Amino acid sequence: MKKINLVILGALGVVGQEMLKVLEERNFQVNNLRLLEHKKFAGTIVRFQGKEYKVEETKENSFDGSDITLIAVGNSISEYYMPFIKKSGSLAIDNSSAFRLKDDVPLIVPEINPEEITNHNGIIANPNCSTIIGLVAINELNKYAHVNRMIVSTYQAVSGAGIEGMAELRKGVIADTNNEPFEPKIFQHEIAFNLIPHIDTPLENGYTKEEMKMFYEGRKILKNDKLMVNCTCVRVPVMRSHSESITIETEKDITIEKARELLKNAPGVKLVDDLENGQYPMPKDSSNQDLIYVGRIRRDISKDGLKSITLWCCGDQIRKGAATNAVQIAELAVEKGIV
Amino acid sequence: MKKINLVILGALGVVGQEMLKVLEERNFQVNNLRLLEHKKFAGTIVRFQGKEYKVEETKENSFDGSDITLIAVGNSISEYYMPFIKKSGSLAIDNSSAFRLKDDVPLIVPEINPEEITNHNGIIANPNCSTIIGLVAINELNKYAHVNRMIVSTYQAVSGAGIEGMAELRKGVIADTNNEPFEPKIFQHEIAFNLIPHIDTPLENGYTKEEMKMFYEGRKILKNDKLMVNCTCVRVPVMRSHSESITIETEKDITIEKARELLKNAPGVKLVDDLENGQYPMPKDSSNQDLIYVGRIRRDISKDGLKSITLWCCGDQIRKGAATNAVQIAELAVEKGIV
Repeated sequence: MKKINLVILGALGVVGQEMLKVLEERNFQVNNLRLLEHKKFAGTIVRFQGKEYKVEETKENSFDGSDITLIAVGNSISEYYMPFIKKSGSLAIDNSSAFRLKDDVPLIVPEINPEEITNHNGIIANPNCSTIIGLVAINELNKYAHVNRMIVSTYQAVSGAGIEGMAELRKGVIADTNNEPFEPKIFQHEIAFNLIPHIDTPLENGYTKEEMKMFYEGRKILKNDKLMVNCTCVRVPVMRSHSESITIETEKDITIEKARELLKNAPGVKLVDDLENGQYPMPKDSSNQDLIYVGRIRRDISKDGLKSITLWCCGDQIRKGAATNAVQIAELAVEKGIV
Repeated sequence: MKKINLVILGALGVVGQEMLKVLEERNFQVNNLRLLEHKKFAGTIVRFQGKEYKVEETKENSFDGSDITLIAVGNSISEYYMPFIKKSGSLAIDNSSAFRLKDDVPLIVPEINPEEITNHNGIIANPNCSTIIGLVAINELNKYAHVNRMIVSTYQAVSGAGIEGMAELRKGVIADTNNEPFEPKIFQHEIAFNLIPHIDTPLENGYTKEEMKMFYEGRKILKNDKLMVNCTCVRVPVMRSHSESITIETEKDITIEKARELLKNAPGVKLVDDLENGQYPMPKDSSNQDLIYVGRIRRDISKDGLKSITLWCCGDQIRKGAATNAVQIAELAVEKGIV
C-alpha cells in the first residue's frame, strides 16, 4: 500500500490527538507527517510511530506536497484553509460541519456508504458524532426494513466540547463535592450532576443545530430524502461516550429476532443485549474503543404491528464519533487509489 | 379544617423525611403524629412543627386511632402492614407500587384526576415518580388534544434509589476523581460518569418494570385504556430530579402556540421555554421544589401535520415524584371530608 504524506490540522486538540493514536494503532502507512496547530503551540514535540515530530504553525502553504489532510478544527478555521488545501491537491477529510451538506462533498460512514468516496471533489466530510453513532446502530435494520422515521433522544458526553469540556465536568464535580461555587465557562450551565438540553446553536424551528444534524446528515448518508428524524440532544455528565435512545419505524415488517440477528453481524457494531443478566450498552464500557454498542432491542409497544423497534446504543464520541471514522475514510481513500 | 391523626410508615427514609418537610411547609394540620420505622431506628428524635417526636418500631397495632397513614416503604413492607392499616380504619396513602393497578385503588395525581379520591376502599396509591412527572407535563395537552401515543426517554436521578443511591453516586465520583477502584452496591453498575439503561426488574417483553409503569399507570390515571406508551428508563448521574424527553401524538390538531399557552397555565407546571436565551428545564433548577418544569416545546418534525409534539421536562423525584404528591392526596382527602 502507498505510503501517505499526511497533514493533521489541529493535531493537539482532543480529536487530533485521538487521530494520531488511531493511526498508530491501525498502523497507517505514513511517509511524511506534518502536525499543524495555532502558532502558540508550534514547537511542541509529539511522538508517532516511534519518531518525534515538531508541531508547526499552520500556514497557507502547509498543505503543499501532502496526499491527505485530516481536519480536526472548527468550521471557521476549516473554511479558511480549505482553498489552500484544495490548491495543494491534498484530499481534505474534514471533521467540521462546514461542508457536510454540500452537494459535491461525500459525507461518509465507511460501514454505511463507502461507495460515495469516489464522488469527492477534494473534500470528504466526516459526519457529526451522534449521527455516526446512531446510524451505525440502525444501518443493518435500515437495509433490511427501510427506516422511514427515527425518534432519538441523546445522552451526549462532555468530550463533545473537547478537553476543556472534560476538564469542566471534573472541576464542577470536585467543586460540588467540596460545596464550593463553580462558574461554568465551556457549557451554558453547570454540567456536574446536571443535564443540559441544549447543544450547538438554537434554530427557528425550536430545534438546535445539533438536533438537525441527525435529520439532514441522516438523509444524506442513508440516501433517503424522505427520512423523518426527530432528535432531542442532551448533554450529560459523562466523559467520552455518547448514548442514544432510538425508536425507528420501518416500511417493512421486522421481528425482534431478525433485528438481533442483523445487529449481531452488523459491521462496526457490538451487540450487548441481555437485560436479564444486566448486560446492555453503557458509556463507561464503550469508551476508548471503536465499536457502537447496541442493546435493549425490543418491540416498540406504542405501535401495533411489526414496523417499529426501540433500542439503546453507546459509542465513543472522540473515536468512532470523530477520529476513527476520519481515519477509516483515509484508509478507504488509499485502498480505492484515490490518493 | 379537621386536625389529623397521622402516621408515617418509613419516616426516616428519603421520602419519609421529605414528607415531614412538605407537611411542615404546607402547614398540614396534625393532631397526633406517629413516626414508624424498623426497630433498629426506634428512639430516634425528629423535630416537626416545633415539637419533638420519638420514632417508634412499627407494630401491627401502630395504626390504631389514626386517620391517615402515609406509606413510604417498599412493596413487601407495605403489603405486610396493609391489612392492619385497613383494620384500624386509617386511610392508606401508599407510595409503593404494590396496589397501584388494583381496580378498587385510586391512583391519583391531584392536578390530573382528583375526582378519583372518592372511589377509594381504604387505599389510595401514589403513582411512580417518572409517571407523575411525565403526566403532569402533558396533562393539559392531553385534555385539549387527547394524547394517544407517548414515546418517552427518561434521565432518572439516583435519589430513586434513596439516600444510599445518592451516597453511592457521591462516593463513585470521588473514587473516580482519585483514580481509586469503586464497587457499586446499590446500582447494578457504576453510576458515576456513566448511564445505566436498567431500572427495576426486567420483564419478558424486553422492557423493565419501571418502563411498564408509565404504560399501565398512564392508562389508569388518564382513563384511556388505548393509550400507547413506549418508555426507555435510564439512570443518570444526577442527584434528585428526573428528566424526560417526551414525544406525544394526539387525536386532535395542536399548534405549538396553543401548547405553550396551555402549559403556561397548567397546574403544577412551570413553563421554562426560551432556548434562544438558554432557558429550559434542568434537573439542578427543578430540585428542592414542587413544580414540573416544561420546555423545549416544538413540533415533532418526524411527522407531518399538527398531531405530534416534542418536549422536555424535569421534576424533583423525591418531592412531586413522591412526597409532595402523597401529601397533596392527604390534603385532598381532608378537604373532601373523606377522613
